[in-house]
Amino acid sequence: MTARILVLPGDGVGPEICREATRVLEALQRDHGLDVELEEDLVGGAAYEATGEPLPAATLEKARSADAVLFGAVGGAQWDELPRELRPESGLLQLRSELGLFANLRPAMLYSQLAHASTLRHDVVAGLDLMIVRELTGGIYFGQPRSTRTDTHGRRQAVNTMLYTEGEIERIARVGFDIARRRNKRLCSVDKANVLEVSQLWRDVVNEVGQEYPDVELSHMYVDNAAMQLVRAPKQFDTIVTGNLFGDILSDIAAMLTGSIGMLPSAALDEQGRGMYEPVHGSAPDIAGQGVVNPLATILSVAMMLRHSLHRQDLAERVEHAVGDALDRGLRTRDIMDDEKQVASTGEMGGAVIDML
Amino acid sequence: MTARILVLPGDGVGPEICREATRVLEALQRDHGLDVELEEDLVGGAAYEATGEPLPAATLEKARSADAVLFGAVGGAQWDELPRELRPESGLLQLRSELGLFANLRPAMLYSQLAHASTLRHDVVAGLDLMIVRELTGGIYFGQPRSTRTDTHGRRQAVNTMLYTEGEIERIARVGFDIARRRNKRLCSVDKANVLEVSQLWRDVVNEVGQEYPDVELSHMYVDNAAMQLVRAPKQFDTIVTGNLFGDILSDIAAMLTGSIGMLPSAALDEQGRGMYEPVHGSAPDIAGQGVVNPLATILSVAMMLRHSLHRQDLAERVEHAVGDALDRGLRTRDIMDDEKQVASTGEMGGAVIDML
Ligand SMILES: CC(C)[C@H](C(=O)O)[C@@H](O)C(=O)O
Ligand SMILES: CC(C)[C@H](C(=O)O)[C@@H](O)C(=O)O
Repeated sequence: MTARILVLPGDGVGPEICREATRVLEALQRDHGLDVELEEDLVGGAAYEATGEPLPAATLEKARSADAVLFGAVGGAQWDELPRELRPESGLLQLRSELGLFANLRPAMLYSQLAHASTLRHDVVAGLDLMIVRELTGGIYFGQPRSTRTDTHGRRQAVNTMLYTEGEIERIARVGFDIARRRNKRLCSVDKANVLEVSQLWRDVVNEVGQEYPDVELSHMYVDNAAMQLVRAPKQFDTIVTGNLFGDILSDIAAMLTGSIGMLPSAALDEQGRGMYEPVHGSAPDIAGQGVVNPLATILSVAMMLRHSLHRQDLAERVEHAVGDALDRGLRTRDIMDDEKQVASTGEMGGAVIDML
Repeated sequence: MTARILVLPGDGVGPEICREATRVLEALQRDHGLDVELEEDLVGGAAYEATGEPLPAATLEKARSADAVLFGAVGGAQWDELPRELRPESGLLQLRSELGLFANLRPAMLYSQLAHASTLRHDVVAGLDLMIVRELTGGIYFGQPRSTRTDTHGRRQAVNTMLYTEGEIERIARVGFDIARRRNKRLCSVDKANVLEVSQLWRDVVNEVGQEYPDVELSHMYVDNAAMQLVRAPKQFDTIVTGNLFGDILSDIAAMLTGSIGMLPSAALDEQGRGMYEPVHGSAPDIAGQGVVNPLATILSVAMMLRHSLHRQDLAERVEHAVGDALDRGLRTRDIMDDEKQVASTGEMGGAVIDML
């Protein structure tokens, strides 16, 4: 059965990286029996300019009926003054929520070819390979009530609500345990249970779910300590599971440890394993349109799509190996450049991966 | 006029580090004309064991009437199962709130003598000197409503509230600008304004206060990016101002960049500049009572007390220089140990600083 893939390039470097990822999908279709149908639509600032909304109904409709979504990036300074619900980021948040993409997988691994790119000492990060599982449709990102109001003295105050239900925690905990089980069987749950009721419930429920996974070693860590430990000794972690806000922060730290944020993919999955795939880096308006952005994070997001939504583990590995081979050949986009290597444009890097497939 | 200082050693290594800091205060009293009166009382787990409460009324009373409080550390696994309001950490949170200590100053600087201790590459952190100003009595730490409840189907859910008023943001912003003005005149305000209403108000109010400080260069950064930038290029920052939760996380990252969390002091100030001073590191129960903990963070907290609450800039500098001299002499506690140096116990390190005064 033909799988339907919706490509949402978005803003900034989004179109450039999605172009290369699309070429990879087309090459797999042509040469390796991948049965897909590709469609493209608007999201983010680009959608706002065309339709007045960062997530037009038509885009949401197509995303709902697709088997997987490839997402580029959204955002840019020109939209920062809009009311929040019209900003590009709102399009992304609505997509996550409307599609029920509650499980965000953010791997952070150090490519041995790029070890020099990390700002951390080599011994601290060599061989780093960790997975952050972030809850993506709950917590303070979506909690009600949320508002800005003016009190009787005309003074403003604003409120957001961090809320988690037992059910929300249970299902993300299961994802965390399942992934840890397929990795090194160690799961660290991160919260702030010494201060927040929400975190105490988080900890209790994760402990309860843990009863079903006696083979996975479970630990708990406060978020401030976890941020610190990621800098001190990141290799102590195998799989981390955490809430939406803490996951946002910790996954960016983990990404930066590798020094190569232009290399890191992510997946956002629903309960059926349908998903949206996007690079961890953002829209980078400062380098957009110049053909210099690194397309590998997006190409590796295609690999995650092949694995998690299209059930083509074989092709996922093929793509990942091709990326490694392109690096081995000495090609580097500007963000991961190093003396003695060859600077590649976005298109050259994409082309090299396709050659290696 | 004799200044009254309340010493609250607390749990774990608290008593050991406070002992050395107290000896420093006594030496300044004896030899350098510091006019102080010291008193000691219980807080945290130690107070809970003795009185059933982590912050007994008598302790709070003394803290209210003191000119400054020196705080050791609280917490330990044996109290983790208590209801939140009886845990050692609650004693600390209540003290902050009851005393109105809204401005938390957390400097992170790299001692050139200890550059090897950082897990970051030397060029990335050499000369690092940044100040994090964290709001300490508001935000999600104290917001109401907060609760865990059970719905009609018997399923649990928990809620916390992130709330900031215009007035709370204004006063911490002013502290941030004032400090930046005395440093390198660059203030970075950290929030999550692309997602949270509270952060949007934060950003608006910081911009408004910024009008009064045309000589300070103001920038804004999202918290996930700030966490990442601290790892990528920490020297881009001079002064950071942020809310309670983000400040908790970012200040721990900043501390860890130096590799010497045993060296970092902090101050929590009220509107009159009265304050509570404590090391950034915690109670470290695993090494408590062994005479190996580094007392320098607490001794440097005394220096902050001399500067901010006792108006003895001269003695603050004297203490800071003495700490530098002790390091220059080659003394190292275990946490900052290096080949070719001499291992010092907690008491030897404290003694060395006193010798150098
Ligand atoms: C753009 C923003 C809303 C988003 C988030 O905070 O989730 C981004 O930082 C991310 O991590 O995907
Ligand atoms: C112990 C804990 C409540 C506290 C906090 O989160 O504020 C600590 O982490 C700190 O940063 O002082």
